[in-house]
Amino acid sequence: MTEPTLDVVALGNAIVDVLSNADDAFLAERDLAKGGMQLIDQDQATTLYRAMGPGVEHSGGSAANTAVGVAALGGRSAFIGRVQDDQLGEVFAHDIRAAGVIYAPPTAKPGPATARCLILVTPDAQRTMNTFLGASAEIGPDDVDADLVASGRITYLEGYLWDQPLAKQAMRRAASVARDAGRQVAMSLSDAFCVDRHRAEFLELVEGPLDIVFANEAEIMSLYQTDSFETALDAVRGKVQLAVLTRSEKGCVIVAPDGVHDVPASPPTALVDTTGAGDLFAAGFLHGVTSGRGLVDAGRIGAVAAAEIISHYGARPEADLKQLVTGI
Amino acid sequence: MTEPTLDVVALGNAIVDVLSNADDAFLAERDLAKGGMQLIDQDQATTLYRAMGPGVEHSGGSAANTAVGVAALGGRSAFIGRVQDDQLGEVFAHDIRAAGVIYAPPTAKPGPATARCLILVTPDAQRTMNTFLGASAEIGPDDVDADLVASGRITYLEGYLWDQPLAKQAMRRAASVARDAGRQVAMSLSDAFCVDRHRAEFLELVEGPLDIVFANEAEIMSLYQTDSFETALDAVRGKVQLAVLTRSEKGCVIVAPDGVHDVPASPPTALVDTTGAGDLFAAGFLHGVTSGRGLVDAGRIGAVAAAEIISHYGARPEADLKQLVTGI
Repeated sequence: MTEPTLDVVALGNAIVDVLSNADDAFLAERDLAKGGMQLIDQDQATTLYRAMGPGVEHSGGSAANTAVGVAALGGRSAFIGRVQDDQLGEVFAHDIRAAGVIYAPPTAKPGPATARCLILVTPDAQRTMNTFLGASAEIGPDDVDADLVASGRITYLEGYLWDQPLAKQAMRRAASVARDAGRQVAMSLSDAFCVDRHRAEFLELVEGPLDIVFANEAEIMSLYQTDSFETALDAVRGKVQLAVLTRSEKGCVIVAPDGVHDVPASPPTALVDTTGAGDLFAAGFLHGVTSGRGLVDAGRIGAVAAAEIISHYGARPEADLKQLVTGI
Repeated sequence: MTEPTLDVVALGNAIVDVLSNADDAFLAERDLAKGGMQLIDQDQATTLYRAMGPGVEHSGGSAANTAVGVAALGGRSAFIGRVQDDQLGEVFAHDIRAAGVIYAPPTAKPGPATARCLILVTPDAQRTMNTFLGASAEIGPDDVDADLVASGRITYLEGYLWDQPLAKQAMRRAASVARDAGRQVAMSLSDAFCVDRHRAEFLELVEGPLDIVFANEAEIMSLYQTDSFETALDAVRGKVQLAVLTRSEKGCVIVAPDGVHDVPASPPTALVDTTGAGDLFAAGFLHGVTSGRGLVDAGRIGAVAAAEIISHYGARPEADLKQLVTGI
């Protein structure tokens, strides 16, 4: 078996984020659940966009943000995801490549536009995401480059993709190619509502093909249908090689074969916009483990990367992450 | 003659800015003049975009920024400019309307894409602009809605438009409609290189149809081909009703029939990105005079609006400008 040439190959939605400030009343009037992600169709996207304030466009996408974070930390990463042959698709491809991630967009096919996520940032720095998946939803197993996946030490899957039948097949294929090549498979549960929609299958994944699972408190508690984080932690213990449970300002808990490790959060320089905090935590953790660091150090690197993202708008790093993590 | 229903009708380029950080070496390698604006074609735009780092997209355009600033200060403004029927055109139209500016894009015609300006921001907060004009360059006299222009107290023209023959006709038509309706005409000289390209015509405009001219030090010195700001100031005196000369951190000088008024700059909370500083100064000044304030107060409002823009990336206000200028 050859040595992997990449650290992380990420599979996820290829999305351009449109960030705008909004107040709680704007969310309440439209029944938008603060802090969550809901899928919207083209008409809903048009209506919501019209009502929103002026926006700023940043490339996003959960696993794509993670791939960028790994590259920013000095790791080698690639991304698999679908865009349309349009201006936002060009923006997405430019930004992820300019960040040092290997990305060859699959050949575009006629159909919906590149995905956009209308993100409303409230004064408490929480983000409420409304995603029009467009072309991103059309990813399928044929888009999974088996050689690329096999070349990555860890294949990282975005839970959000599970909502799309073809994308689900793409994820299953990527996981199977990775395992056949002797690589590891990681996945983020993405969102508590997403877990709720796919609980049975996510439980099978955690107990089956996954080596590493990332979840925040709401997601792991939703997975095991409990109100208690401790109960959820006990439930996941022993089911998967590593469960990395993030708890916002309370830090993270790494559930590993040798025990449970608590890692404190890193304080952000400012609390501006939490978009991408989980994605960048995962980037830091994955960079840590793929560069041979211990689990606690990997958690610390994740905490620093998450703190950087929270301190500004957008889910891609602006500061020099490599420099921020020197000393860990 | 009816009373105007709008304060400012702005005519200019409809552009989406792509902001990216760059260092001085990046500019030097490509012979880009720091702080200036150069026009680039589609091929140059593609080459430069490929070389640039990850970007963030903000709506921009010099006169469009001014129209947004007027609205943010509580004034009534409209914008005239051309976009293509594409994603960036949609972004431009959304953002300017969401900011409270009246904007009805002229019917799109087949041709180049919506304009984009690749803006390289160096660590000293200076911006170097590389503009692919695309659809924006195709504005012509037919796009000037005479009723709209006649309804504005001041018609504000962007000097950059003078580079395009048809756009120049659009500017001449707007100025003529405004004057026939008994309104005032203002213009920004936009850029020292732009002044250099059109000196003779700009001198005719200043001494002819214009009531108010906005220029920074480099622009007014280029107009009168002198190395001395004092010489340029003496030269413009008496040639135009109002010459508003901005001098960055040295504040501004208002050359009026009743004398010359110095107004100090307003200190920004941070020095991040100077993109749009002149546009927002003009917005504040125009809002001041259209709301019946004295010239010095108008200059102070301009200074506060400029300081806000400098303190963050992008050329559209993020803070509540109305609140920032209470007390002036």
